[in-house]
Amino acid sequence: MENTITEAYITLPKGFKANGVNCGMKTNPANFNPDLPKNKYLDMGLVLSDVPANVAGAYTSNLVKGHSLVRSIGLINSGNKVRGIVINSKNANAAVGAVGIEDAEEVASEIAKLVGCSSSEILTASTGVIGSRLPKEKLIAKVPELVSGLSADSETAHNAEYAMMTTDTIPKEVSATITLKNGKEVTLSGMAKGSGMIHPNLATMIAVFTTDAEISNDLLDKFIKNSIKHTFNRVSVDGDTSVCDMVVAFANGVSGETIEDNTEDAEIFQEAFTKLSEDISRMLAADGEGATKFVEIECFGADSEYDAYLVVSAIAKSPLVKTAIFGMDANCGRIVTAAGYSGAKFNPDKLDVKINGFQFYKDGCALPFDEEEVKKLLEAHDINIQVYLNGGEYYDRMFTCDFSYDYVKINGDYRT
Amino acid sequence: MENTITEAYITLPKGFKANGVNCGMKTNPANFNPDLPKNKYLDMGLVLSDVPANVAGAYTSNLVKGHSLVRSIGLINSGNKVRGIVINSKNANAAVGAVGIEDAEEVASEIAKLVGCSSSEILTASTGVIGSRLPKEKLIAKVPELVSGLSADSETAHNAEYAMMTTDTIPKEVSATITLKNGKEVTLSGMAKGSGMIHPNLATMIAVFTTDAEISNDLLDKFIKNSIKHTFNRVSVDGDTSVCDMVVAFANGVSGETIEDNTEDAEIFQEAFTKLSEDISRMLAADGEGATKFVEIECFGADSEYDAYLVVSAIAKSPLVKTAIFGMDANCGRIVTAAGYSGAKFNPDKLDVKINGFQFYKDGCALPFDEEEVKKLLEAHDINIQVYLNGGEYYDRMFTCDFSYDYVKINGDYRT
Repeated sequence: MENTITEAYITLPKGFKANGVNCGMKTNPANFNPDLPKNKYLDMGLVLSDVPANVAGAYTSNLVKGHSLVRSIGLINSGNKVRGIVINSKNANAAVGAVGIEDAEEVASEIAKLVGCSSSEILTASTGVIGSRLPKEKLIAKVPELVSGLSADSETAHNAEYAMMTTDTIPKEVSATITLKNGKEVTLSGMAKGSGMIHPNLATMIAVFTTDAEISNDLLDKFIKNSIKHTFNRVSVDGDTSVCDMVVAFANGVSGETIEDNTEDAEIFQEAFTKLSEDISRMLAADGEGATKFVEIECFGADSEYDAYLVVSAIAKSPLVKTAIFGMDANCGRIVTAAGYSGAKFNPDKLDVKINGFQFYKDGCALPFDEEEVKKLLEAHDINIQVYLNGGEYYDRMFTCDFSYDYVKINGDYRT
Repeated sequence: MENTITEAYITLPKGFKANGVNCGMKTNPANFNPDLPKNKYLDMGLVLSDVPANVAGAYTSNLVKGHSLVRSIGLINSGNKVRGIVINSKNANAAVGAVGIEDAEEVASEIAKLVGCSSSEILTASTGVIGSRLPKEKLIAKVPELVSGLSADSETAHNAEYAMMTTDTIPKEVSATITLKNGKEVTLSGMAKGSGMIHPNLATMIAVFTTDAEISNDLLDKFIKNSIKHTFNRVSVDGDTSVCDMVVAFANGVSGETIEDNTEDAEIFQEAFTKLSEDISRMLAADGEGATKFVEIECFGADSEYDAYLVVSAIAKSPLVKTAIFGMDANCGRIVTAAGYSGAKFNPDKLDVKINGFQFYKDGCALPFDEEEVKKLLEAHDINIQVYLNGGEYYDRMFTCDFSYDYVKINGDYRT
């Protein structure tokens, strides 16, 4: 029903344009990403629909919320159509007081003037350092370049992704064409940035989706909520939930096709949305700060959905598990320990643990293994940890990465 | 009322002896502690009272519990007097099935034979790698040396502490003499080991206390419970709660002085117990794996005790906060972020944050600061983070350390 596109970009759905520029905030490639070409040091991006679009979003659960985000939540909740979103990196526009919303409004207003719409049609998102005022003059000075350069071509669209990257080392973009029951196609694209301060719900994570289908705000909201539960809300890099996270989706209807709730088309679209969300979530975990491994943690046989969540969440957050994976050390005791303190109720004497298919624990007891064989197993880039509680029927999973020297390096001197 | 002793050791209270030996399990100083003298590579220690003693304990909340610990809990819960405790490092005797308790029983039994008591009078504790069977033959072979070398002298007593150290770099021992209302003195000593897999409640932490006062099991239990709440249960190194943790206290009455519940003496004793627990908890945090800093986190003005706990706990666990402290980076946004996602209810617009007395946040807004001045401030070894919620009257605090390259190094290759 749905085909993942080889070259994915945010303007693949009809009627969207994007761009990314440098406002002078991102002046170096950061020590963790020395290979980034200089023309990709971008720090302000814009995604714009040619026509007013429906919009829905999901946001960080952090009590402290960034000002750009708070402004966007208000606009989305108003139920009015919007044109797009401006996103800057290097500065989170958070914890600076009342001026934070005013600064975001001013930048949006400058864009709206050139685009020819109301500032309330331009959402704002910011990611970066918390507690420094947004250098709005720098942003505003580059708004003309940002707007005049808007384009639907892939190269320009990629620049919108580069503009929101902070410690990400690779861009994360996904696209799919979705064939509806009537044989017509609509297109869905997504782009996201990580890659630290990530733990449900949500993360230092901004994800933008665009589609040319006509979808009501309510249905779009439902698609997002259903999608993120086991995808974006199951990514953990360091257990920290940031103040700026959001997933936002725009539906501009330019394809001429409408998706109604409770139809087969809605199911097809939901499936595609969830699949792209999962793809991009895996990318986020694999590109976690300092990551050398992608780690998927699964819990089977829990007595409740919440127990399963507690187990995968505790393991995904455990610095001991994550450093052991970095060291390629079969230290399963740490996995068992994390499950044990997770708060989940289970019988420890029934616990089984497998890593990449190899069974390390059975009935709560460690099994013997050949060090050499296991070392080989753990050299894989993708690590799959399966914990079987052998109680009830519930399952959950989480995506994370290992914990390396580079995580400490990146975060020991991120701000300065 | 109470004097902290300069040279602290576990046999300072009358009627206790101790010793530590090498059974061949600890064969090298581990890369994180190259300066440890070779005669301190000890891995089995014994603390023994000359006469049967009352005993009480507090244990890990982990659902998975080590076999040596499970055995000790049973013996303590029986209410019978005991003679002492044997503790080994390098192997946690956990997650190996029914043989785990049998192995611990066999080691205790060998000691009991030579001491001339019942095996049920010898408690057991193990710390180290999870999921490997205890090499009991190695331990049993060294029991004669362990028992025959028992002594009350300080040098020998220190060896009991060295024997339970795993990744600790320095021994942790505390002692106090306590003057009772009648002018007589009793003595209290404690020793503990950390220093990873530490988070309430409790930690990869074993602490043993001895006193020559006569104290009922119930009152001893009360002293422990009151002491640990804001001391041992407020130490976090990496957020992982191990399967082997315990605080155990022996009271042998050899001083001839009895402490009764609901008396002034009980208050004096409690105060001393809490003070020593706090001292040793600070040592545990300061010697956390790879630690370069000691960090105390305080939360003021919470609406409830639990909210205050949630805030200090989230900050203490945050890898982003801990790496920023390692990097001496004034990244207070991460502190605010952690408070925000902690689950505590508070008004983010009233949040104040101070580090070592310097105010970084007021009313939820970052204040300007001089980079050079602040850099100097953060070069201190002891970092005090104060978060003011400015709501209610509740307070909590937690002891932790920073997150360094060495934490990753230590835990990337701890097992192998």
